[in-house]
Amino acid sequence: MTYCCALRLKDGMVFISDTRTNAGVDHISVFRKLYTFGIAGERFITIQTSGNLATTQAVIGHLQNQLEVKQEPNLYSVNTMFEVAELVGHTLKKVISDVTSDTLEQSNYYCSLLVGGQIGSADMQLYNIYPQGNFICATPDTPYFQIGESKYGKPILDRTLRYDMPLDEAMRCSLISFDSTIRSNVSVGMPLDALVYKKDSLEIPNGKRIYEEDQYFTMISKGWSEALRQGLIELAKPTADYFQ
Amino acid sequence: MTYCCALRLKDGMVFISDTRTNAGVDHISVFRKLYTFGIAGERFITIQTSGNLATTQAVIGHLQNQLEVKQEPNLYSVNTMFEVAELVGHTLKKVISDVTSDTLEQSNYYCSLLVGGQIGSADMQLYNIYPQGNFICATPDTPYFQIGESKYGKPILDRTLRYDMPLDEAMRCSLISFDSTIRSNVSVGMPLDALVYKKDSLEIPNGKRIYEEDQYFTMISKGWSEALRQGLIELAKPTADYFQ
Repeated sequence: MTYCCALRLKDGMVFISDTRTNAGVDHISVFRKLYTFGIAGERFITIQTSGNLATTQAVIGHLQNQLEVKQEPNLYSVNTMFEVAELVGHTLKKVISDVTSDTLEQSNYYCSLLVGGQIGSADMQLYNIYPQGNFICATPDTPYFQIGESKYGKPILDRTLRYDMPLDEAMRCSLISFDSTIRSNVSVGMPLDALVYKKDSLEIPNGKRIYEEDQYFTMISKGWSEALRQGLIELAKPTADYFQ
Repeated sequence: MTYCCALRLKDGMVFISDTRTNAGVDHISVFRKLYTFGIAGERFITIQTSGNLATTQAVIGHLQNQLEVKQEPNLYSVNTMFEVAELVGHTLKKVISDVTSDTLEQSNYYCSLLVGGQIGSADMQLYNIYPQGNFICATPDTPYFQIGESKYGKPILDRTLRYDMPLDEAMRCSLISFDSTIRSNVSVGMPLDALVYKKDSLEIPNGKRIYEEDQYFTMISKGWSEALRQGLIELAKPTADYFQ
């Protein structure tokens, strides 16, 4: 499996992806699932991938190839993030239908994508793109999307994430969402790829690859377990009727 | 869906089940999924159910009917918790095969069961019973089982639950696991049925039905959100390389 999470907040965007792929528990590999595109000062685009690895690599491959051979439209020629989402969606749909025309069989080749970024002076946008090529857009009400193994890491986001949260706090919140997932499900694994985009910067961040031995990640993983245990002990004891 | 969780700890057992059933989002009902059997001073048995409602009600119905018509074997005539698990497993398998002999179609009628309890001076036991009638048994290494919508509530159990945890702390831990699930997934809903069995008591607890307006549950739900937010703020800020 995979776990990718993307936040579109007041001050910017946070993206984290794991890197574990598996075709059975005895066939586990490390593949990057977070890709960046962009032209500094003009546009920044991130794509996160979940699902069939051949499909996701083909989608990224086509998008890169369109740029190389200057095929129109491409990620650097479209005008808005909406057009970016359309282009990625069309590319995804075509990749899947190229493998097989059998609609039932197509689901074997499905993947989901998160596409976020900013072009020029327009707002940042974050899209969740479905295998059918259509998509939904994040809003202040629902400022985050997850793809892949999303359930373990959802409660912490639902309880603490806010649209107007500072980026460093949002990063901690997302890292804990990943740590919780990794502890409970072996199909999601380190290293992680994390990337923060500051609103209106129009820079292309390098991002950070977080390895298992990463000092900060280890520290907050331990610190969080401690905080939970402490929080649990400090909760009032159940009333007597809970033991009747 | 459903969420049921059962713990077998050093000092006793904790069982919690939700009560929401749904056949589509426009067909939601409240059905009990936690059942108790027993003879005070001799044996205590709890069964929690998840899956096709007709199947789970048929299993419970057959087990109750066996007792009423004194059919052998029954829950009060078997000698050990292992034999209880076998009886429940056989009953479940028969209920499913009575509906259809088509193996592929059988999965539509699947359910999973958690069976816990104690008979006489033997150890308490907790079993997870599969639709095929076979089962696994909880141990100090893995002192809990979940059935149904289990992923949202797993991280808190994985991080904080210990075999030698006091029962009141284990109850808080389980309630938070339920609160997290209910907040993130509408297919799991209040009221909850909770029950604590104290080791070697051989009593049949009444248990407690926890309604949405339950004062204690509301308090720890709010208290936990507060503890998480506080814990998050107190974690050290990410190092600069996280923003590069």
